[in-house]
This record gives sequence, structure tokens and C-alpha cells, in this order.
Amino acid sequence: MLNNLNGVVNSVIKRYDSEKIKQLVFNIYQAYGFSTDASRKVANTLIYTDLHGIESHGVQRLVMYDHFIQNGKIRVNSHPEIVKETDVSAVVDANFGIGQLNGIYSMNLAIEKAKKHGIGIVTTRRSGHYGIAGYYADMAAQQGLIGMSSCNSRPAMLPTHATKAFVGTNPIAFAMPAKPHTFIFDCATTTVPQGKIEVYNKLEKDLPALWVAKNGAEPVYDHNQVDDFKALRDPDSNVGLAPLGGVTEETGSHKGFGLGIIVEVFTSILSMGNISTEITPENLEVGPCQSFTAIDPAIFGDKQQIIDRFSRYLQDIRELPAIPGKTIYVHGDKEAAAYEDRIKNGIEIDDRTLEEITDIAQRLGIEYAAFMK
Amino acid sequence: MLNNLNGVVNSVIKRYDSEKIKQLVFNIYQAYGFSTDASRKVANTLIYTDLHGIESHGVQRLVMYDHFIQNGKIRVNSHPEIVKETDVSAVVDANFGIGQLNGIYSMNLAIEKAKKHGIGIVTTRRSGHYGIAGYYADMAAQQGLIGMSSCNSRPAMLPTHATKAFVGTNPIAFAMPAKPHTFIFDCATTTVPQGKIEVYNKLEKDLPALWVAKNGAEPVYDHNQVDDFKALRDPDSNVGLAPLGGVTEETGSHKGFGLGIIVEVFTSILSMGNISTEITPENLEVGPCQSFTAIDPAIFGDKQQIIDRFSRYLQDIRELPAIPGKTIYVHGDKEAAAYEDRIKNGIEIDDRTLEEITDIAQRLGIEYAAFMK
Repeated sequence: MLNNLNGVVNSVIKRYDSEKIKQLVFNIYQAYGFSTDASRKVANTLIYTDLHGIESHGVQRLVMYDHFIQNGKIRVNSHPEIVKETDVSAVVDANFGIGQLNGIYSMNLAIEKAKKHGIGIVTTRRSGHYGIAGYYADMAAQQGLIGMSSCNSRPAMLPTHATKAFVGTNPIAFAMPAKPHTFIFDCATTTVPQGKIEVYNKLEKDLPALWVAKNGAEPVYDHNQVDDFKALRDPDSNVGLAPLGGVTEETGSHKGFGLGIIVEVFTSILSMGNISTEITPENLEVGPCQSFTAIDPAIFGDKQQIIDRFSRYLQDIRELPAIPGKTIYVHGDKEAAAYEDRIKNGIEIDDRTLEEITDIAQRLGIEYAAFMK
Repeated sequence: MLNNLNGVVNSVIKRYDSEKIKQLVFNIYQAYGFSTDASRKVANTLIYTDLHGIESHGVQRLVMYDHFIQNGKIRVNSHPEIVKETDVSAVVDANFGIGQLNGIYSMNLAIEKAKKHGIGIVTTRRSGHYGIAGYYADMAAQQGLIGMSSCNSRPAMLPTHATKAFVGTNPIAFAMPAKPHTFIFDCATTTVPQGKIEVYNKLEKDLPALWVAKNGAEPVYDHNQVDDFKALRDPDSNVGLAPLGGVTEETGSHKGFGLGIIVEVFTSILSMGNISTEITPENLEVGPCQSFTAIDPAIFGDKQQIIDRFSRYLQDIRELPAIPGKTIYVHGDKEAAAYEDRIKNGIEIDDRTLEEITDIAQRLGIEYAAFMK
């Protein structure tokens, strides 16, 4: 659901062959010094994201990761390691390795536990930005399991009635096998994630209500209030993202806020990692935390019957009477449509992102022009 | 957080001794023919709810349960039974027994599994209304565990862009031990639960935005639109409750809607019970579904360290700068304050509810006046 804005910007964005760009990302990560396996995993996750139309978290993120690899916040030769484990759980220390490696390692561990014991919950600390939470939830769904993943982040969300951000955007991802395609829910517990504010800012569009607030409850709309947008990145400012449900109890602010706290429990609190307020881009000794859960539906009943019934339930929702001109989307529908389009027509990369990738490739001394055709 | 309205109605509502009313409820359930154990459990859950200031789900519900006991929807001699089980999971058939019995039985089963194996997830079908989801989550927290509970209900929520309700109000409850008191999140995945609409209607107050919509996205505000309020109970009407996040994607409608679907997975889909649209008050062969999860924090690390860190995190939130005149509440704070007040000053019972209880007691031929002083 991060791709709601694609329609707005489609007209100016060029398409590129996903396989070629994947190869280029792989080459870039090899050049940084990552192993073949690690480079392949990073390339796969980023291109998966672009193929599903979630451009904010795809190759657009290369420049941010490049910055962190250069300043040592992402450590090239680090590997995740298990620090505590039971049949159904583990705590993983990512040792500040790249978030995607930690994510794939930890979700595979949860999947393995779920296959053997029905359920696996893995919580990780000292990780890095891991892209979209939905990727890891989907890993479990691709194995016929229910998958969930969450991560914390630096302060962004205003607790209800607070004038200073404290909780992260703390997304919740949930995936479950269904026909004709996987149900994937992947949502920040703020009304919108930080990336959506950046897109509106770039497009010079005013913000809708319930997205950003100043001094606790004053809505920030005007895109000309550049200082307010910048203040979103400043942990000491009086501007923050509204929780899902806005900034008043009347509209349910305390619900999004509470969901953000629950995400914090499964990420930083249980792993004894860094909580949101400890995370800064500068401090190399702190990192975000993530959680990964896999559940085998077969522990509850006949897996195929459960999936069939769930698929019928989702289809019944799609077929409800709708507002004229509107479509009822079930979570994962938009992403499945984007995937079909981008596999055929290429992934969307805006010129600025392309330039950023070119710069990185040039600096690393690797060939890039052939991959961008 | 269901008690936000208490301030509004406090002035006219009398207080009653919680122990006496508990005894009266116990006597009523004995008179229906429930066992001593079952009668005690129902009385305990209802009074717990009133003591925590959530009057909408306390003894106020006796009249609804009375109706269901009389028409056979709640079966007096039914007991929950396990139909499928693993070390970490179970499916329970409640056999249309009273929801509270199923809830206590099933959460105890989840707690037992969590104590032995770290995690327990129990999903139940053919149950009855079980009161507040938070009660069951708190059962786990009282044993030093993380507790979660959810239930489905008849259609109430409008899926984003749909003009007809389909998903239930599908609450999510989460409890975790903390100092100075348990963190308890207990929220419908609609902006507000049905009960809050009823309170506003009773008070002849107009509804805030984002609560109720007609034809998919037209807000219903005016309390004089009595037909619209009534239509909320009609599954074929074009009026429904807005998901948490309202009725447009811009304000995050798809997030509350998706959370409602996830609740449906853990309740009806995994238990192969009745989904929301199958549930009606009239059909005696269908019943709501519930889920119960317990997780032992000790599988992740030192339990006391985890709880201390979580308590510090919550306290830091309470101490953030706030909007002038407003208090920052963490989930469970309001309920803890209500408990302290009601244990001392009695629980609040409005005159209409008192009359309903009197009528039930009279019909069952049991003494009541002495308990209402």
C-alpha cells in the first residue's frame, strides 16, 4: 500500500529491465566487499520491492545504504549470530551487518522452527535498515506459512498528546498464502511512513490532514512550510508524524500509538536492543531492531482447507458493493498488479535515483551503462 | 480506553459496592443453572470490567446475556473441548457455552503451553460474546507473560471503498507486565466500537468524523439521523463503522481494515469457525470465534530485565512534553486509575442497567435489594 502515489508520478518516470538492474546492484555489493551470497540477497530484496511497485524502498535506497556502508554504520563483514535460542524462539545479534542479511537469516530461522515446532519467533538487535517488512513476512508465506515482521526506527511518531516524537514508524507486516495471490499487509503504525511525506514534498503537494502535527495536535498541511518538513528528521523538534488514527483520542490516535509500542516490545524490548530514542544515523554503536514470526497453519487444521476458506473470505470482500468508480482492494492486490506490470514493462527508476546509482558505480569503478538500457 | 466517555456521564450515575454486585451476579448465574465454578467466573469477569471503568462491557451486558441464555444461543451446560492440539497450539470448540468460560479455559490452556514451551496460541470456535478482550490478555500478564486476545463479531466495519459492512469490530488486546502496573492495549480495529455509538446516541450527541459512514465514505454525524444509527445493526444496510484510519486510503483506512482481517485469521479462519458474515443474533447454530496467545518473555532473556526496561520505556513516554492541559496516558493508566477509584468508591451502574438487573433477579425469584445498597 506504499505505492498509492505511483499514479501521480508515473508520467515522468522511466522503466528499466529488472534483471539488468539486479545484476548491477549485485556488482555494486560485490565491489563493496560483500560475499557473493550477501550481494545476491541484497539485490534480490531491492528488486523484489521495485517489482511490487514499492519504489520508496527499492533501489531508491541504495544511496542511503551507500552512505552507511561508507561511514561504517553498515559493516561489510558482519554476520548475524544467535545469542539465545529455544525450540520456538531466538534472539539474534546482527552485529551491525546489513539489515537484509539479518532479515533473511532471522526469518529463515523462524521458518525452520515453525516447520519443526509449529511456531517460531525471532527478535533481533543491532541490525540495519532492512527494506520493506513485507518481504520477510512473504518469505514465510512462500513456504505455506503465516509470516509476520516488524522493525523499530528512530523517533517519528507523536504519542497521543505529546509534542515531541518518540515512537518509530514501527511497521507491522503480515502475510498469509491465499488464492489468487498472497495476502500481504505491510503498514507503518503512523498514518503514513516518512517516505510518503518526502514524495509529497518533492511534488510540492500540500499534506492531507492526520499526517503530520506540530505542538502535538496542530496539523501541518502547507508544503511551503519547509522547516516543518525538515523538523520531522530532528528528534528535538516539536513536529512529528501522527499515529494511525490521528492525534486525538476521538479519532483513535491512542490505537496507532499503542500498536507502535507493541512493535517496540517485539523488536527492541524482547531483544534488549536499542529502543527508538537511542537510534541515530550518526552513532555507529546503535542499530534498529526487528522481529520475525512464522506460524504453520497446519497446527490448527487442514492447511489447504484453511487457505481455501481464507481465499473465499477475501474474494467476498472484493465483490462487495463499492463506492462508484472505486475498487475494493485486498492487501496484496495492488502489489500483485504492479508485479505483473513491472515484470513485463520494467521497474520504475526516477532520474535522480538513476544518477545516484551511476555515481556509486563510477566511484566503485564498475561498469553501469550496459545495465541501464 | 473504552472509558473515555465516563467523564460525560459520571454526574448522573450512582455507585455500588463491587463485592455485593459480584455476589448478585453469581446468584443470578446459579439460578440460570450454571455450576458454582462457571457462575463465579462470569461474576469475576464482569466485575473486573466495571472496576476498570469499562462499563459498556461490565454488568451492563447482563441483559444481553440473559436474552441469549433464554433463547438458547448461550447453552447453560456446555463446556469447551479441545479438538486439535500441539505443544504450542490448540483449537477449542466452545460448544456455544458462555464466552467467558471459553475465554478463561482457552487462555489458561495458552498460559500452560507458554509456561512449558515458551508460546501458546489457542483459537476457538462456536463461542459466545466473551466481554472485554483485555481481560484474557491480562490473565497472562498476571502470570508474568505477554498475553494477547482477539475476537470476531457480526459485520460492522466497512472495508475501504465498500458500501456495506463486512468485517467485525475485531478488537486486538495485548498485555505485558510493567511497573507500576500492567500495560494493557485493548482496541477495536474500527475507529470506535459499537458501544461508543450507543453512548453518543443515548446522550444525543453528534458523532465526530471518522466514526460512521454511509454509502462508503459519507460521514454520519447528526444524532437525529436515528435510522442511520439503527442501520448499523442491519447487515444489509449502507451504513457501517469506519475502520481505524477512517474511510479513505489517505487517512489510513486500509490499515484498520487490514488489521480487522488479521484478527479474522486468528479467530475464525484458523479455527474453521464462523466468519463475521455468518454470525447473527438469531441463528443458534453459529457463534463468534476468539483467539488467545501467551508468550513467556523468559525465552528471549532475563524476564526482570525485560520488564524493567519496558517500564522505563513507558515512563519516558509519560514524561514527554505534552499539549498544555493534556496528560500523556500509556495504555492501562486510565484503567488502573479507574480501578483505584472504584475499589474505594464503588462501581458505576446507571439506573437503566440497575432496572434490567432487578428485572432478571425478580424473574429468577432471587433476592436483590440487599445487594444494591
